[in-house]
Amino acid sequence: MKSPLLTDLYQLTMGYSYWKQGMAEQEAVFHLFFRRAPFGGDAAIVAGTGPASEFLDGLRFSESDLAYLGLLKGADGEGLFESGYLAYLAGLDWQLEVDAIPEGELVFPNQPLMRIRGPLLQCQLVETALLNLVNFQTLVATQAARLCAAAGGDPIFEFGLRRAQGPDGGLSASRAAYIGGCVGTSNVLAGQLYGIPVKGTHAHSWVMSFDTELEAFEAYAASMPNNAVLLVDTYDTLEGVRNAVKVGHKLRAGGYELLGIRLDSGDLAALSIEARLILDEAGLPDTKIIASNDLDVTKIRDLKAAGARIDIWGVGTMLVTAAEQPALGGVYKLGALRNRDGSWKYRIKLSNDRIKVSNPGVLQVARTRDAEGKVIEDLLFNEAESRLPEGSSELLVPAVRSGCRVLPDVSIDEIREQAMKSWAQLAQGSPVVRIDEGIEVIKGQLLKTNGFAA
Amino acid sequence: MKSPLLTDLYQLTMGYSYWKQGMAEQEAVFHLFFRRAPFGGDAAIVAGTGPASEFLDGLRFSESDLAYLGLLKGADGEGLFESGYLAYLAGLDWQLEVDAIPEGELVFPNQPLMRIRGPLLQCQLVETALLNLVNFQTLVATQAARLCAAAGGDPIFEFGLRRAQGPDGGLSASRAAYIGGCVGTSNVLAGQLYGIPVKGTHAHSWVMSFDTELEAFEAYAASMPNNAVLLVDTYDTLEGVRNAVKVGHKLRAGGYELLGIRLDSGDLAALSIEARLILDEAGLPDTKIIASNDLDVTKIRDLKAAGARIDIWGVGTMLVTAAEQPALGGVYKLGALRNRDGSWKYRIKLSNDRIKVSNPGVLQVARTRDAEGKVIEDLLFNEAESRLPEGSSELLVPAVRSGCRVLPDVSIDEIREQAMKSWAQLAQGSPVVRIDEGIEVIKGQLLKTNGFAA
Repeated sequence: MKSPLLTDLYQLTMGYSYWKQGMAEQEAVFHLFFRRAPFGGDAAIVAGTGPASEFLDGLRFSESDLAYLGLLKGADGEGLFESGYLAYLAGLDWQLEVDAIPEGELVFPNQPLMRIRGPLLQCQLVETALLNLVNFQTLVATQAARLCAAAGGDPIFEFGLRRAQGPDGGLSASRAAYIGGCVGTSNVLAGQLYGIPVKGTHAHSWVMSFDTELEAFEAYAASMPNNAVLLVDTYDTLEGVRNAVKVGHKLRAGGYELLGIRLDSGDLAALSIEARLILDEAGLPDTKIIASNDLDVTKIRDLKAAGARIDIWGVGTMLVTAAEQPALGGVYKLGALRNRDGSWKYRIKLSNDRIKVSNPGVLQVARTRDAEGKVIEDLLFNEAESRLPEGSSELLVPAVRSGCRVLPDVSIDEIREQAMKSWAQLAQGSPVVRIDEGIEVIKGQLLKTNGFAA
Repeated sequence: MKSPLLTDLYQLTMGYSYWKQGMAEQEAVFHLFFRRAPFGGDAAIVAGTGPASEFLDGLRFSESDLAYLGLLKGADGEGLFESGYLAYLAGLDWQLEVDAIPEGELVFPNQPLMRIRGPLLQCQLVETALLNLVNFQTLVATQAARLCAAAGGDPIFEFGLRRAQGPDGGLSASRAAYIGGCVGTSNVLAGQLYGIPVKGTHAHSWVMSFDTELEAFEAYAASMPNNAVLLVDTYDTLEGVRNAVKVGHKLRAGGYELLGIRLDSGDLAALSIEARLILDEAGLPDTKIIASNDLDVTKIRDLKAAGARIDIWGVGTMLVTAAEQPALGGVYKLGALRNRDGSWKYRIKLSNDRIKVSNPGVLQVARTRDAEGKVIEDLLFNEAESRLPEGSSELLVPAVRSGCRVLPDVSIDEIREQAMKSWAQLAQGSPVVRIDEGIEVIKGQLLKTNGFAA
């Protein structure tokens, strides 16, 4: 999928017009950021900056790409692009400098997740692909971190491939879910490509292939005694648990253990409590109870509150599609343009919508951390000059202490107060032990994060 | 992305257990269907059955796939799979027979969109990939058809790549949106790969690269006089329209026309009405007004109701993520299994959740159509025998006359009444002019549909 045509046509028409106007190689700085944190929270877990950075490596227009562009027509039936432009694209000397926040870090609204610096035309061409890669993966990593927080530290597996948005949507989702805190995936290709642990046992169809459920369970356990998790709800759930117990005893006689049972329908709180009793009474206290069935943050919270005896959670659709908010509205805005005399011209987008105003400058992030490495606060500053450009607003990005559980309960005022306090402490030099400045992305490395967990 | 590892691990562990039990080559029939139509409607526009069918062509396990599977471990640290199984997978003789509804057709709940018939293990292995491809594309095609209906026939362009779920999520979405009725996309790679018309002009960053908006508009129109659609809301929208008018007059002097202006923020109804007046008074009545900015079905309906003078709609996020319902819950269920004596054993999944019960049989769809080719009604029947298997329920799939606009207003009772009426007419042989039986997928062909439009 590494093609410079993975873009919106308007990037190429703008590129053409920059080229026509002699502006194609003017040095520009773009910032990729989001204006509102997803899911009504105050922060996100960034992901996709690694793949976005890799996307830029070795990017080039192939002959067939240029042939395709040569066929596009304008309203008058004439070619949209002159052949000179296509020749320019063919010989493009890619010179983009990329800075980005490493995957798995906590990030805040209006803070650049990526900063792209280089010839104006080149910066423009890659906008769409970078947004595509960072928006979706950041959204899913953040959703994973929320789910992990809701599950209070119980392991969560990502099971979403069948409901994901295309094969690659599924792969990116598995990757981002792992970055955000999931312990594994059902997606075997994601396991192969990214080294993520994979898990799985059997589905309803296994049970339906036999005349009775007990027969199905016995056959499965005989085939894979070291991977025995039995799905108990094909016909009647508690009857299924009792059948699983029989198989558990047989397994033990053969030197194995019944690893778990899986519930996939019905009242998961009540059924898990009943199932736990049945398993414990049968001498199978170490057999785990796994639950799935359209689980999301709210359902997991409710199930925990209802005393559900669920040990491991399988989350699919609501994780890989981030159903409560299926898109992150990340944007990519011009911050500065180099004048012919070498000075910077700062750019700000105004709008009738206040939220759509962008911050000017050649922005860099200074991240302050406490002794445990947790983010205290981020400071944005203009790297090009010692002062902030005129029109800058709210360039201080107030951080909250990481920990998803506190996020929904913290008001904006409290966050500001905390930011002020840590800012004051910063001035006294006391709790800040490290400031990361000029954070660079670590290419191709899949960083495991603690997500929002404390 | 054509890899047999694009699957959930449990397909491979079930496959292993079928193989261990000597059941791997038992003939099976699986149906891929959805239980509830998306977006609270009664039907969907199917898409993805072509790519799903292509996915199966030439599928095979590579050496590195098998090496990866050989590394997976069970709970006891021993290999999950015996080497004999990996050798079996390496030499697999793929024999799946595929029937599917062609892309772009209207489809109903509980009706098989695909029927896969062949060795049990093979049917099982491909479940996840088929669901992934059909679920997402059907969802987006249906969303596109709803948007087209809401826009009352105005052209809709898909602009969603930057918010789509990965690069391939964006490509699949562009493809499915076109099947569902969109007239084009901004996604250049989708244009190249699928032959979908691509459109685009410029973004805010173009305007921000110049000192004044007028300068930016003039430069753009000078560079691309045959593709002049000007984005007017970077600073002040109506001022932007007036600047566009100046450029429109210049273009006309040079023998070109200002094709359109685009609004991307603010009160689109009020702004489009004002903009139309300004354009008309300036002698530019053919300059189109294009609108974008998180548009969805409800917003388009509301804007139409408010008298918005919008000619062309650009829809991104809400189309490619199908935000109101970001996943279609399509499933893949075993319908029948061949006994050793050649007879069929029908399989039905019961559940505490009534909706999760599946229909048994070797199901086929008979589609009845009127003189205009519109669907009157679908009948499901068991191809293996002349009678339906015991336990069959609701095998008549009641159709509604196509036309998205009527869907939300039709009650279940009315649908049933209509089905009964057309069923009675069917008996008299009057309005049905064609019955398609044994509908087969047309591989690799992108069919253009009228979607839900009348």
